[in-house]
Amino acid sequence: MTTSDAGLLADRTPLPSDLDSRLRDHLTFLIEVDKLKTVLRQSPLAAADRRENDAEHSWHLALMVMTLAEYADEPIDVGHTIKLVVVHDLVEIYAGDTPLYDAEAGVSQQEREEAAAGRLFGLLPEDAGRAMRALFDEFEASETPEARFAKAMDRLQPLLLNWMAKGGTWRTPGVTANDVRARKAVIGEASAPLWDAARRLIDEGERRGWSVSAPPGT
Amino acid sequence: MTTSDAGLLADRTPLPSDLDSRLRDHLTFLIEVDKLKTVLRQSPLAAADRRENDAEHSWHLALMVMTLAEYADEPIDVGHTIKLVVVHDLVEIYAGDTPLYDAEAGVSQQEREEAAAGRLFGLLPEDAGRAMRALFDEFEASETPEARFAKAMDRLQPLLLNWMAKGGTWRTPGVTANDVRARKAVIGEASAPLWDAARRLIDEGERRGWSVSAPPGT
Repeated sequence: MTTSDAGLLADRTPLPSDLDSRLRDHLTFLIEVDKLKTVLRQSPLAAADRRENDAEHSWHLALMVMTLAEYADEPIDVGHTIKLVVVHDLVEIYAGDTPLYDAEAGVSQQEREEAAAGRLFGLLPEDAGRAMRALFDEFEASETPEARFAKAMDRLQPLLLNWMAKGGTWRTPGVTANDVRARKAVIGEASAPLWDAARRLIDEGERRGWSVSAPPGT
Repeated sequence: MTTSDAGLLADRTPLPSDLDSRLRDHLTFLIEVDKLKTVLRQSPLAAADRRENDAEHSWHLALMVMTLAEYADEPIDVGHTIKLVVVHDLVEIYAGDTPLYDAEAGVSQQEREEAAAGRLFGLLPEDAGRAMRALFDEFEASETPEARFAKAMDRLQPLLLNWMAKGGTWRTPGVTANDVRARKAVIGEASAPLWDAARRLIDEGERRGWSVSAPPGT
């Protein structure tokens, strides 16, 4: 589950030693995060026959925030919401991606991500690391309108990809259409019209047999 | 140069026809932009043995804006600057990537990108398309402090990847260290300390033979 984790990327081609040390820390962090491009998610792309990675996913969420902000039930600061989605998956560089329908991995997720956050944001100058960590914590806590909208995008985006794939991860063995509805309901905490549309896609997917209506044997 | 361009992605698995038509246009656009994940750049990743795509690149720039904003010579609105980098490469979905050191492709670039912008942003509801287009134009015009900083990130990011690759596209035949300096000088229009650091990397790369000091025969 953990990705290319053997030492800092920046150690492979060390930056010149005479760079300003604060800037050097910033750049070391910005090189390390290149690893997010190698963390694969379960979602299949719509535009190519491969799985999506976390960096692509995070970019897609940023554009979704900009495009769909008008559907937010509460006013949101769009720029701040984009910051939340840009950083929200960074800890997966060390903690790995936790699939939405993998209950077992979900149990250890918080612990793994906590350790990863300390390690990754610790590469930054202390004040900068604290600010980045605050954004990650805000997203996770889901207590601000911006965090709720960011979470809604994080659930809606793979739903669109699953729709395009005529099922995608909805076809995960043991997962039913009701499981999908339950995991996607957080969209409704940020936007009634987007949750209406999401339910419409889930319902129609179930009707077409892209997700199962009940687990086998029930 | 042009990528998967045969029709709209959303036409492959049409959205339910009873969705609100404005939201349907928004979602059609957000599905179409999945293609950005298939537009390959020349830059090699630091974390894996493959080339970077535009979506990953755009995400990396967003995080760089957040991390390096303190080095901007003029105050910038960080949220707005992130919006600029999130959209700046979208037109390459139809126009393709134009390598920085490809003068020939550079000639037709503006015309191709103009047509692509009309086509892509035209998928959105008219007001939303106009707003997205304005961000793209602002980035291109480079007249605001935010656009200048966004452009600086767009030049600094591949420079970091080239450093990590011990040359990367600096090794393009016919390209000299002075060509690299000339193409990267826009960093200095946004940030003196970042341009100092960038020059330090270019100088050191030349010293190590990762870029050539003069074209063969001169």
